[in-house]
Amino acid sequence: MTTALTPSTNAVDLGPAVELVSKEEGHRQPLAPEFVSAEDFSPLEVGYDFGRVRREDIESGPRNIWRYKKLLPVPSNVEEIPNTEPGCTRLVRADNLAKALGVKRLWVKDDTGNPTHSFKDRVVAVALAAAREFGFDTLACPSTGNLANAVAAAAARAGWQSVVLVPSSLERAKILTTAVYDGALLAVDGNYDDVNRLATELAGEHESWAFVNVNVRPYYSEGSKTLGFEVAEQLGWRLPEQIVVPIASGSQLTKVDKGFKELAQLGLVDESPYTIFGAQAAGCSPVSTAFRNGHDVVQPVKPDTIARSLAIGNPADGPYVLDTVNRTGGSIEDVTDEEVVEGIRLLARTEGIFTETAGGVTVATAKKLIEAGKIDPDAETVLLITGDGLKTLDAVEDAVGPKATVAPSAAAVNEILGG
Amino acid sequence: MTTALTPSTNAVDLGPAVELVSKEEGHRQPLAPEFVSAEDFSPLEVGYDFGRVRREDIESGPRNIWRYKKLLPVPSNVEEIPNTEPGCTRLVRADNLAKALGVKRLWVKDDTGNPTHSFKDRVVAVALAAAREFGFDTLACPSTGNLANAVAAAAARAGWQSVVLVPSSLERAKILTTAVYDGALLAVDGNYDDVNRLATELAGEHESWAFVNVNVRPYYSEGSKTLGFEVAEQLGWRLPEQIVVPIASGSQLTKVDKGFKELAQLGLVDESPYTIFGAQAAGCSPVSTAFRNGHDVVQPVKPDTIARSLAIGNPADGPYVLDTVNRTGGSIEDVTDEEVVEGIRLLARTEGIFTETAGGVTVATAKKLIEAGKIDPDAETVLLITGDGLKTLDAVEDAVGPKATVAPSAAAVNEILGG
Repeated sequence: MTTALTPSTNAVDLGPAVELVSKEEGHRQPLAPEFVSAEDFSPLEVGYDFGRVRREDIESGPRNIWRYKKLLPVPSNVEEIPNTEPGCTRLVRADNLAKALGVKRLWVKDDTGNPTHSFKDRVVAVALAAAREFGFDTLACPSTGNLANAVAAAAARAGWQSVVLVPSSLERAKILTTAVYDGALLAVDGNYDDVNRLATELAGEHESWAFVNVNVRPYYSEGSKTLGFEVAEQLGWRLPEQIVVPIASGSQLTKVDKGFKELAQLGLVDESPYTIFGAQAAGCSPVSTAFRNGHDVVQPVKPDTIARSLAIGNPADGPYVLDTVNRTGGSIEDVTDEEVVEGIRLLARTEGIFTETAGGVTVATAKKLIEAGKIDPDAETVLLITGDGLKTLDAVEDAVGPKATVAPSAAAVNEILGG
Repeated sequence: MTTALTPSTNAVDLGPAVELVSKEEGHRQPLAPEFVSAEDFSPLEVGYDFGRVRREDIESGPRNIWRYKKLLPVPSNVEEIPNTEPGCTRLVRADNLAKALGVKRLWVKDDTGNPTHSFKDRVVAVALAAAREFGFDTLACPSTGNLANAVAAAAARAGWQSVVLVPSSLERAKILTTAVYDGALLAVDGNYDDVNRLATELAGEHESWAFVNVNVRPYYSEGSKTLGFEVAEQLGWRLPEQIVVPIASGSQLTKVDKGFKELAQLGLVDESPYTIFGAQAAGCSPVSTAFRNGHDVVQPVKPDTIARSLAIGNPADGPYVLDTVNRTGGSIEDVTDEEVVEGIRLLARTEGIFTETAGGVTVATAKKLIEAGKIDPDAETVLLITGDGLKTLDAVEDAVGPKATVAPSAAAVNEILGG
C-alpha cells in the first residue's frame, strides 16, 4: 500500500521529525513520502524528538507558522525558502456573537486572513517544505476548491510546477481562482471520487509529483496543528476550555488536539482540561451520525450539502475524531443548509467576519450545541473559522441583498431609513 | 463648506492629534468632523504633537495598525475597543517577479490579508475610531466595492449602524459581499457621481452619520500612513529606495509619503532618499496625463477601465500627488486594461498572490517604468498591492482557465502533461 516512490531519505532535514509511526499499532519506519503502514494498514503519522522547546524560541520567530518550526516536520531553515508565509491569523474576541449565542466568553479564530484565504495554506506550506526535502519538484492535489487555490499559489511562489485536478463540473469562479496561478490545472470528466482515485493512481506513477493529501499526507496534516498552537499562544500561552472544529476528513480536529497535547507535554502551556466539539453539515454527517449512535466506526455517505469544502462522505480520520471527541468529553452535531446560511449571516452581522459555508457550519453547530446544553455557556469557547465567504457567494445569494433601491435624493433615503 | 455638524470636540481623545490644518495655507482649527478649510477651501489635514515615540513603543504593540497609534488620530486605548484589527500584512520578498521584471530587489506589500481583503480596512478603522470620539453612531460611505465591504464589516464588529450607498447597477457579487453584514445597504438609481453627491448631501443632514470619506475624511485618510509605517518597520526600520503606489483619489500615495517623512522626523528611521511612483489605468489617467504634460493641476476625465477601484475621474489629491512624485524624483504612468490583466497574471504566476485589478495596474505600471528606465533596476523597489483578486474575477475570466479537460485516467493526464 505504500507508493511506488523511491524516497531519498538520506540526510533529509525535517527538523524535529525523526520517523513515521503507524496510527493503530505504533509500527515505526524511517521518514519517507509514504502515508499508509505496510504493517497494519493504518495511516502513518510523524514521530518527533522535540528536545527542549521554549516559548522564547517561538516568540522570537517570524509572524507565520514557521515560528512553530521546532514542532513541525520541516527543515530547520524553512522560513528562508520562498513560501506563502501562512498563519498568525487573528484570534478575535467575539463579544457580540457571544451575546447572540448566550455564552460568556467567545473567540473566533479567523483563518480567512491566510494568503489564499483558507487554512489550507497552512497544510500545503508544510507539505511543500517536506516534499522539497524528499526531492519532489511538482506539487499536486485533487480538489474542489480551497486546496486547489492553496496548492497552485504555493507552487507558484516556490517556483515549482503544480498539477491540480478538479471535476470538470466545478463552478467557473473556483476554476478561475486556481487557473490564475498558471499551473497545470486539469478539468477531469468525472465526480470528485473519480478525481481522487485518479490522484492516487498518478501519485504511484510520477516519482517527482508530491500529491499533498496523498503521498505526503503525514506531513501535510501536521500543518493543522498550527491552528492549535496559535490559539494557545494568542490566549497568552494557555489552552482554551472548549473549541468547535469543522469536520471534513477529520484530520484538522485530531491535529488541533495533537497540537494542544504537544504544547502541554513540552511545558509550553499548563496542562488543563479542554473539550473538543465537531461540526458537520446534515447533508454530509457521517461522523456526527456515528457519534449520535455511539459507533466507533463511520458509515460512508453520499454528500449533498452547500458546505462543499466539508463534503467528504468517507472521512479518513472519522474514527480518530470519535476517539478525540469522546476522550475530551465533547460532542458532534450537524446542521441543515438553512442553518449554515444563518450561521454565515450571524457571524457577519455580529463580528464583521464573512466566512464560507464551512464557517457557517461551525457557527450554526456551536449555536445548536449551546442550546442543547452541550457547550457550557460559562466556559470559554473558540470557534475555528477556516475559510472565506468570497469563495462561496452562491450560498448567500438568495438570502441577502440591498435594503431597498432608491432614487438619488436625500428625501428618498430618509424615507427608507426614517431619517 | 464645512458640514452642518455640531462637533462635540470637548475632551476628544485622538491621541497625538491636536488640530486640523488646511493643506494650502496652513490655517489651523480645532479637531472636528470637518474636511475643508473655511479659510482657503483646501482639504483639512490632521496636525499632531507627537512627543517622543520610540521603536519599542511600536514593537511592543498589537500585531495590527494600532501598534502605530502614537502616530494616528485615534484614542489612546483604541486597541481595546472592538474593531477589525487590520494591518500587519505580509511584506513579501518577490525574487521570482524581480527576475521576470529585470530588477534586483523587489518587495510586494500584500494588503489582501486584511479583514475584508483590501487596504480600505485600514482607513475605515481609523475613521471609525475618530468618529466614535466625535459622538457619531453610524458609519456611512458611498462606494462601488472595497470601501463598502470595509465599512459594513467594521460597523458590524463595532456594533454600529452602517449606511452604504452603491449604484444600483453594481454587480451582484459586490452587493452580496456588503449586504451580508446586514447594515443599511441602499442601491441608488444613478451612477457613482450621483451616489457621491447624495452622500455629501446626507452628511450635511444627519448629525450622527460619519461618512468615512466625507465628513471624517481627514482622519480616514491618515490610515493610509500605516502602509508606509509597516513597509519601513518590515524592512528593519528603514525606508525603501523606490515604491510604486496606485492612484485613485491620490490620497494613499501622499499619505505613504507623509508616513515616511514622519518616521524620519521622529528618528524612527534614518533619513534616506526615496522615490515614489504613481500607477493609473489608461482608462482613468488624469494624474498620469497631467504628469506627462508637466501640469500642476489635474483635468477631470470620465473613467472607462476594468480597474474600477481606481476609477476616480476627478481625484481630490491629484495636485498633491504631482507635488510628491516630482519632489521625490519619481514618475507616473498608466497602463491599458490588457496590461492590467497581464499584471494580475504575472504576480499570480511568479509569487502566488492573486490581486484585484488595482494590483494589476501597479504591477503593469512597474513593468512599464522599469522598461522605460524610470525605475532603477539596481535599487530596491516596493509594490503596494492593495486589494484581492477574488473581488474582480471578471477581469481574468476570459484570460485564464484549465489547461485541458481530460478523461479520468492517468493515461489521459500523461498525454497532456507529457508524463
